[in-house]
Amino acid sequence: MNEELRARAAKIKAILTDVDGILTDGKLNFFALPDGRVDEFKTFNALDGIASRMCVSCGIKQGIITGRRHPSTVYRARALGFSYIYQGFLTKTGPLEDILKRENLRPEEVAFIGDDITDLPLLLKVGLAVTVPNAVEQVKKAAHYITSRQGGDGAYREMTDLILDAQGKLEPLIECIKNSSWKGYSLPQLQIITSQEGIS
Amino acid sequence: MNEELRARAAKIKAILTDVDGILTDGKLNFFALPDGRVDEFKTFNALDGIASRMCVSCGIKQGIITGRRHPSTVYRARALGFSYIYQGFLTKTGPLEDILKRENLRPEEVAFIGDDITDLPLLLKVGLAVTVPNAVEQVKKAAHYITSRQGGDGAYREMTDLILDAQGKLEPLIECIKNSSWKGYSLPQLQIITSQEGIS
Amino acid sequence: MNEELRARAAKIKAILTDVDGILTDGKLNFFALPDGRVDEFKTFNALDGIASRMCVSCGIKQGIITGRRHPSTVYRARALGFSYIYQGFLTKTGPLEDILKRENLRPEEVAFIGDDITDLPLLLKVGLAVTVPNAVEQVKKAAHYITSRQGGDGAYREMTDLILDAQGKLEPLIECIKNSSWKGYSLPQLQIITSQEGIS
Amino acid sequence: MNEELRARAAKIKAILTDVDGILTDGKLNFFALPDGRVDEFKTFNALDGIASRMCVSCGIKQGIITGRRHPSTVYRARALGFSYIYQGFLTKTGPLEDILKRENLRPEEVAFIGDDITDLPLLLKVGLAVTVPNAVEQVKKAAHYITSRQGGDGAYREMTDLILDAQGKLEPLIECIKNSSWKGYSLPQLQIITSQEGIS
Repeated sequence: MNEELRARAAKIKAILTDVDGILTDGKLNFFALPDGRVDEFKTFNALDGIASRMCVSCGIKQGIITGRRHPSTVYRARALGFSYIYQGFLTKTGPLEDILKRENLRPEEVAFIGDDITDLPLLLKVGLAVTVPNAVEQVKKAAHYITSRQGGDGAYREMTDLILDAQGKLEPLIECIKNSSWKGYSLPQLQIITSQEGIS
Repeated sequence: MNEELRARAAKIKAILTDVDGILTDGKLNFFALPDGRVDEFKTFNALDGIASRMCVSCGIKQGIITGRRHPSTVYRARALGFSYIYQGFLTKTGPLEDILKRENLRPEEVAFIGDDITDLPLLLKVGLAVTVPNAVEQVKKAAHYITSRQGGDGAYREMTDLILDAQGKLEPLIECIKNSSWKGYSLPQLQIITSQEGIS
Repeated sequence: MNEELRARAAKIKAILTDVDGILTDGKLNFFALPDGRVDEFKTFNALDGIASRMCVSCGIKQGIITGRRHPSTVYRARALGFSYIYQGFLTKTGPLEDILKRENLRPEEVAFIGDDITDLPLLLKVGLAVTVPNAVEQVKKAAHYITSRQGGDGAYREMTDLILDAQGKLEPLIECIKNSSWKGYSLPQLQIITSQEGIS
Repeated sequence: MNEELRARAAKIKAILTDVDGILTDGKLNFFALPDGRVDEFKTFNALDGIASRMCVSCGIKQGIITGRRHPSTVYRARALGFSYIYQGFLTKTGPLEDILKRENLRPEEVAFIGDDITDLPLLLKVGLAVTVPNAVEQVKKAAHYITSRQGGDGAYREMTDLILDAQGKLEPLIECIKNSSWKGYSLPQLQIITSQEGIS
């Protein structure tokens, strides 16, 4: 980790993330329901589940900002200890402003990971802008860090490990786990904010 | 992008696409229904969703021509702003003729992306013939451009970015998005044309 | 294609195939039904669908021999024009003997593609033994040909293209398709033979 | 196989395994049920199914220890001949102690394969600690062996082949299969132990 990246990561108090292509592999799996409607399933990764719990136990807030809307994402966000989910937001700067205000944070205290052009406004504003190898070129140019792992294959975990490491919180947590003394912690209440603007 | 490719892409007014192996990874996922029938699900990609919306906002028409039939494809086509879906057509030249007539276009103003031998007649007729790395050899030989990304992994997006870039429309759109000023636009009405010829 | 391989392929009148790991990627996707039972879905590939139709139109018989049993496999076999499906057979030599007798064929006129040790007896008996890159080592050693494509990613198609090419049937078929003159043909009746021996 | 690894593998009488990322690819596939709840499906591999049956027929006990709970895992464990499944255990040392006692084994007679930090306590205790290429770095450092195959792509099979080979049991079994004389064997009774501690 170079020094500029470490300095950026050391300041992070909240992590925001896109869903499709980051927490998932970007695949949208559509199937027909008995009544003729079409629904989808989403593919998350177990490595990112542990990532989220590590952040909760280290006091780092987490939020989701996505252009789409689906119960699976809300379910996953709640189970993993996310504090915020903004769904249906194609324009993602509104949610960022809202979180900064609610949490009394400055942009340099926020990390954001996204993979497509609709994520560009946020990537250009936050203190730590992260993306994945499969992202579009314009996003890769805007990011401070590109993960080795693909979205849905542990990219979120790679970012949280980097942040916890830069803050000196990773090694103590690993030692705690090795001794089987990583015990329960209370999950935060999930705030759900839904817009009709985005993609169904 | 070489000059011949750019010249071909600059003329495109409509983009036609195969489904399986292009908008999806070519996988056909079969499961049994409670009544004993078998249905399938299809796996599209979020990157291609943004691609389609970029084309709509730039005034480029889009159509699907597929040998198979499934509600998921119709659902996806409508949600993304496609103007035409021809499903169940193993012989794909009929649909091409139909679109050329309806839209008053010449073949050199049309791009087509497909991956199998049933796509060959169209690839040999259109102005810009595109395929994917996983396509069969005969199709790769017939294509003007082979994407880097696989079908279902953003190949369609790679093609639309190439076309919009050749037409000078990509950079202005990105700037517009960076400023969070990429607002709503009305999706076209989807025309559905179904043949009983193709594969169920 | 080397001369020995071409000679083997030129004699083939029937193609037999395993399912999991060959027609699929070997993944077994399990989900819970509302009544508490667990079912699975299987992932086939569109490229192999065209492969099967090419074989039917060239007069080559096709059969499935699998240790598992699932309606999806029967559905897929019927839709694609397979003549035989033997399901639930962990010991696969019985089905081979049965097909040789029904079709009046010698072993050297049969190709078989499989990926695991339960496929070894058949691979050691047939005229053309094929496997995939992801197969176990013992199977790779026993095969006359290892496809470049993985199971579920077009491995079956790669094998059928090789066989049709060795028999001089591939190029004429491609020309026929380029001229949009590849018309309908009647699918054979599917014979279903089920054993209780194999894996549910 | 180096000598230290062979010596470790030769002593193994029981194999314990994590589920997500080992028997599966680590993907958690979420879909909405008609009543609004969210369920998931899990993706196992046919190669590991044969692995498990090979172990049963060679008298090696097998157990699952997982932080999550799902009917699919229980179904898969029962069908494949596992003797134990501990589900919902984030702290995995308790289940290890329990199995050692029930089977009257010492830690050096047990192999364990896992991919995440919650697996570290077990990996540090057992005689043969195995992991996969996609595991997190801390786990890779703790393992005696890293498989070539990914989780859900035959990693479990690669480990069982290694163990059976080190014990001189692999070649005789393959010969037996080549002669189509690998017949039935009775599957053990599955013991299910569920904790409310872990991730739902």
